Amino acid sequence: MVSTKTPSGMRDFLPEEKSIRERVKAVIQDEYSKNGYIEIETSQIENLENLLKSDGGENTKLIFKILKRGEKFQPSSSSTEDELCDLGLRFDLTLPLTRYYANNRNSLPPVFKALQMGYVFRAERPGKGRYRTFMQCDVDIIGDESNMAEIEVLATVYKTLKRIGLRGITFKINDRRILKQLIEKSGFSSDKFTDVAISLDKIDKIGKEGIVKELREKGYAEGSISKLLELSSVFDEKGLAYAEELCPEGYENLNEIISTLKSLYSDMDVIFDCSLVRGMGYYTGTIFEVYYEGSKSALGGGGRYDEMVEKMCGVSAPAAGFSIGYERLVDIIMEREMKLGSFTKCALFYDKGENKADVIRRADELREKYDVVSTFLKKKKFGKQLARAEEDGYTVEEMGN
Amino acid sequence: MVSTKTPSGMRDFLPEEKSIRERVKAVIQDEYSKNGYIEIETSQIENLENLLKSDGGENTKLIFKILKRGEKFQPSSSSTEDELCDLGLRFDLTLPLTRYYANNRNSLPPVFKALQMGYVFRAERPGKGRYRTFMQCDVDIIGDESNMAEIEVLATVYKTLKRIGLRGITFKINDRRILKQLIEKSGFSSDKFTDVAISLDKIDKIGKEGIVKELREKGYAEGSISKLLELSSVFDEKGLAYAEELCPEGYENLNEIISTLKSLYSDMDVIFDCSLVRGMGYYTGTIFEVYYEGSKSALGGGGRYDEMVEKMCGVSAPAAGFSIGYERLVDIIMEREMKLGSFTKCALFYDKGENKADVIRRADELREKYDVVSTFLKKKKFGKQLARAEEDGYTVEEMGN
Repeated sequence: MVSTKTPSGMRDFLPEEKSIRERVKAVIQDEYSKNGYIEIETSQIENLENLLKSDGGENTKLIFKILKRGEKFQPSSSSTEDELCDLGLRFDLTLPLTRYYANNRNSLPPVFKALQMGYVFRAERPGKGRYRTFMQCDVDIIGDESNMAEIEVLATVYKTLKRIGLRGITFKINDRRILKQLIEKSGFSSDKFTDVAISLDKIDKIGKEGIVKELREKGYAEGSISKLLELSSVFDEKGLAYAEELCPEGYENLNEIISTLKSLYSDMDVIFDCSLVRGMGYYTGTIFEVYYEGSKSALGGGGRYDEMVEKMCGVSAPAAGFSIGYERLVDIIMEREMKLGSFTKCALFYDKGENKADVIRRADELREKYDVVSTFLKKKKFGKQLARAEEDGYTVEEMGN
Repeated sequence: MVSTKTPSGMRDFLPEEKSIRERVKAVIQDEYSKNGYIEIETSQIENLENLLKSDGGENTKLIFKILKRGEKFQPSSSSTEDELCDLGLRFDLTLPLTRYYANNRNSLPPVFKALQMGYVFRAERPGKGRYRTFMQCDVDIIGDESNMAEIEVLATVYKTLKRIGLRGITFKINDRRILKQLIEKSGFSSDKFTDVAISLDKIDKIGKEGIVKELREKGYAEGSISKLLELSSVFDEKGLAYAEELCPEGYENLNEIISTLKSLYSDMDVIFDCSLVRGMGYYTGTIFEVYYEGSKSALGGGGRYDEMVEKMCGVSAPAAGFSIGYERLVDIIMEREMKLGSFTKCALFYDKGENKADVIRRADELREKYDVVSTFLKKKKFGKQLARAEEDGYTVEEMGN
């Protein structure tokens, strides 16, 4: 006998949750496909070397590594993890996408609008809402350097979430180039951009005081720290307009994206947020996140990463993409007990002596009328069985009636 | 820069193949669901101990093992694979199903008709049509000890393959109890059942002479070998009728299954095959396989395994199931270039100066008319772009027209 639990941080799904997962997935697939995105699939297992060499930041420390096999497996007391392993489970869908694009670009359209849904794996400490394997839903446009790519991606995400039935959605948007100006104009040297940006990213969680404390601990000059907060405050007050002098190209880009989206969808909530950073190192321009009803953690996000494809595989290609946090989306739908459309179910009960072909023939007939028909042998406690079937939402039919 | 290939035996899928995969999956999901099966999902990663303790035969030697992490990782020159690893990728869906059932049976219906589709992983030597990760589609009925379970499972598989458009399908069926009688009556001792059965299983590949040779090499008595072939021949001649005296319960079971299915679906091809064995050790009664147009390897198979749930987790439950070989099914559809229904696609071209909101508004309007609408910026070589779009099956629309 074995333990019947899943390993820590891994999950099984009961019928109700699986049904919601599949229906959410179907809406995303359908809406993205309608909007011209083409679905692809990439391998869940990658060569470990690829994963380690990627620009994945902290995620490269969380890789599930797969042991070498046969003669290649030669352990010693000084063996490192990376000597004993040659494969790993992917930690995101972006690295596989760029590898895929480089490998197949001659078979793909010149502007490649890709949809990819699949599991990724990260050996994080498990916790509420934090899993060690989770589904990501990524859309990416490779080959369009204009901000039409960002506009389309955001419009499609907006339409998809609306169709799923989510209300109270806010899109936050920023441009890495504005952020860079903000940080450099404050007196930080340009090679400290990522380090300072990571602190700035925490404003929602630790507030201004927390940021000051953290930057002081990191050893930055008081003058730069106070200047950064001052400039950020001007942004809070004047909004995007202030960026026009600080970073004209970033301003123009965001202004066009925001005004275009607002003119298209009057109820779409898109706001400029100069403190938006995004964790990944590879973003080069626009960055965005989507929030649900004042929640502090994003439901999804993305941005433009014009240099990543080239860096990964030597082929230059501009790219922008968005990743929906599928597990969070499903969690919200489960918590809110949102209805995603229902279907008709029928339970056909039969007696032990019944001709089996007759039962199946009758069930096949009922399948013209109901979406789902399941046959059940009558048990001794038929009343209990009936009650259970009705509780599970079945309309009851009996053979002989 | 990194290698852009997938690891050996792993695959990416180009848009066309992915589209076929998704459509085949949707038909299977829909038809099984219509027939009362409830979709579930289990973890792809299992505790290594569970995988090793299971009744998985050869498959337990093909496990991809995942390295322990942090302090638990303590290699030495005498470390075994199983000391260094605590997790593994599953090699089938049956072990996860029984674990799932044992863990969740109080939340599940008393007769549990389960549909499960997901990837499994086996470190086999890669080759044509042999992959190291592949999708399995399993349906199982847990909690029905009557052969109505087998009849329903076979009827559903038949309807599903028919709906996908496959013709020339043959179901082969046998009963482990008949097979046992056949082998014991030939003079083999009952503990040699599996060993002799494995040789008998190869009749399609190595013929009668091959079987004689193999059993001789294994050291069995000439008398038993010739008696086995003699009895098999009587089966070939008299068919199932001969089993009536050899194994009455097996005969009755198969006779009812075959005659019920034939009375339901006049074009369903179900035949008794006394040489059908199935590799797994856990089958207890009916076993079956489905073949496509005289191909020598099965497109799927399954059977009754009444003792496995109890053996795995101490809870007694009769069970029968069928697994469709999803990868083989997709390969057949790709090779035959079978049509799985098509959808309308529109490419909307726009000039660089065009108002972006107007382009998306027009695209949204076209989405009422076409299933898929994708926008494209006109390039300098517009003629080439047009030709490519038409080649890819798009109806072309232009802004301003």
